[in-house]
Amino acid sequence: MKKSNKKVNAGIVIIGNEILSGRTQDVNVVTISNWLNDLGVKLEEVRVIPDTENSIIKTVKELKKIFNYVFTTGGIGPTHDDITAKSISKAFKIPYGYHKEAYAILENYYGKERFSAGRKKMAMMPVRASLILNPSSGAPGFIVKNVYSLPGVPSILKSMLGGLNDRIRGGKKILTKTISAQTVESEIAKSLENVQSKFKKVEIGSYPFFRLGKIGVSMVIRSDDKKKIDVCYKEIVSFLKKKKINMIGKK
Amino acid sequence: MKKSNKKVNAGIVIIGNEILSGRTQDVNVVTISNWLNDLGVKLEEVRVIPDTENSIIKTVKELKKIFNYVFTTGGIGPTHDDITAKSISKAFKIPYGYHKEAYAILENYYGKERFSAGRKKMAMMPVRASLILNPSSGAPGFIVKNVYSLPGVPSILKSMLGGLNDRIRGGKKILTKTISAQTVESEIAKSLENVQSKFKKVEIGSYPFFRLGKIGVSMVIRSDDKKKIDVCYKEIVSFLKKKKINMIGKK
Repeated sequence: MKKSNKKVNAGIVIIGNEILSGRTQDVNVVTISNWLNDLGVKLEEVRVIPDTENSIIKTVKELKKIFNYVFTTGGIGPTHDDITAKSISKAFKIPYGYHKEAYAILENYYGKERFSAGRKKMAMMPVRASLILNPSSGAPGFIVKNVYSLPGVPSILKSMLGGLNDRIRGGKKILTKTISAQTVESEIAKSLENVQSKFKKVEIGSYPFFRLGKIGVSMVIRSDDKKKIDVCYKEIVSFLKKKKINMIGKK
Repeated sequence: MKKSNKKVNAGIVIIGNEILSGRTQDVNVVTISNWLNDLGVKLEEVRVIPDTENSIIKTVKELKKIFNYVFTTGGIGPTHDDITAKSISKAFKIPYGYHKEAYAILENYYGKERFSAGRKKMAMMPVRASLILNPSSGAPGFIVKNVYSLPGVPSILKSMLGGLNDRIRGGKKILTKTISAQTVESEIAKSLENVQSKFKKVEIGSYPFFRLGKIGVSMVIRSDDKKKIDVCYKEIVSFLKKKKINMIGKK
């Protein structure tokens, strides 16, 4: 895994009528985001868009300029609604056709006789793409410049990410420390704001929760600078003690 | 609930560092989307963006022009990272300050003595906003033109949607019919494409699944025209029978 000291960011494009319709709960964002955290890449935007060529082309063109890495999920199977590969070809103005290596992989995976027209479609993509190998079900994803196209099925997507580690040049790893306390947000708002205002480059989030009938607040400190996180953490613990607010466990 | 015959669409803006960081799994999209389906409003885009003023203003300004309705979730609590109200004020160039009605609601909810500075912050919003009442925890959401700002906590958000039914002027209800079958996508791709090409205004999605060790495909037909859905459904059932593919249950 290559590292740099620069900030490295990413966006995700979920090509997903089934997410927009409320039929399917997306779980890929959590998977990709946690994988990116470990690589030192910060996820900065997610867009869920319909399975239409216009929306895919427009969104990919926009995000590939803004972020170091863009990941698309969904729409790379054999059916008529799988139009990611064709749309990415158009977005990059690269011919869409049989990708030699992908064709060979799929033909080998299914065997010559079972390599039907439907399955052959999964070898069609931007002809100059690099492949993302698929250890679960054969059909590869693909990379064009900084855009990485992955399938939508969560278990298959998950199985493909590990093989990408060497392709991502991340920055410093983003670290997180969480403090949960038995309180309500309004009790700690002022003190927490004071800590945040001293450490502008640390991201402090406050999240109320209701768990097992108890209410509380989780304060999440994020930064690539471990020392700053530790100092923030101490300051938060200190004001909680002063206010006699119980902490619920640290991680 | 008012109805029109026009297509009515919506976008969601999730203001959520905690979603982008992978710490929290969003569940509000499914909730809002299903609620919108019943009202005849089609969700056409979701954006998950960071808790920064710039990104909120930019995204809200863009989406409010594109969609009939925009819903924001998150960032309306009492802490420093809750900047939705201020950002929406700026996006619409409306003064940000104490909203009289919201102030009265919150003062009444907490009682004068417990109405602390932190809690008072939740009465600050675009001063000319309409309120979205909150039956769970007092603090109201707010509406400016076609932008509806809701909290991020799923149970609270859910409790507030019902009160909005009369504010949304939906179109025809979007209907769905699903056929699941014991097959793989490549087996039905061509036949399904033929059906889709005959009914351009019906949206047919194909989704492979792996459930209890079995593989299958769900074909989802969506449209506001019940007759067209029924005809598509029959054609799909017919090609499945011809191919001797088992159906798994209908809904």
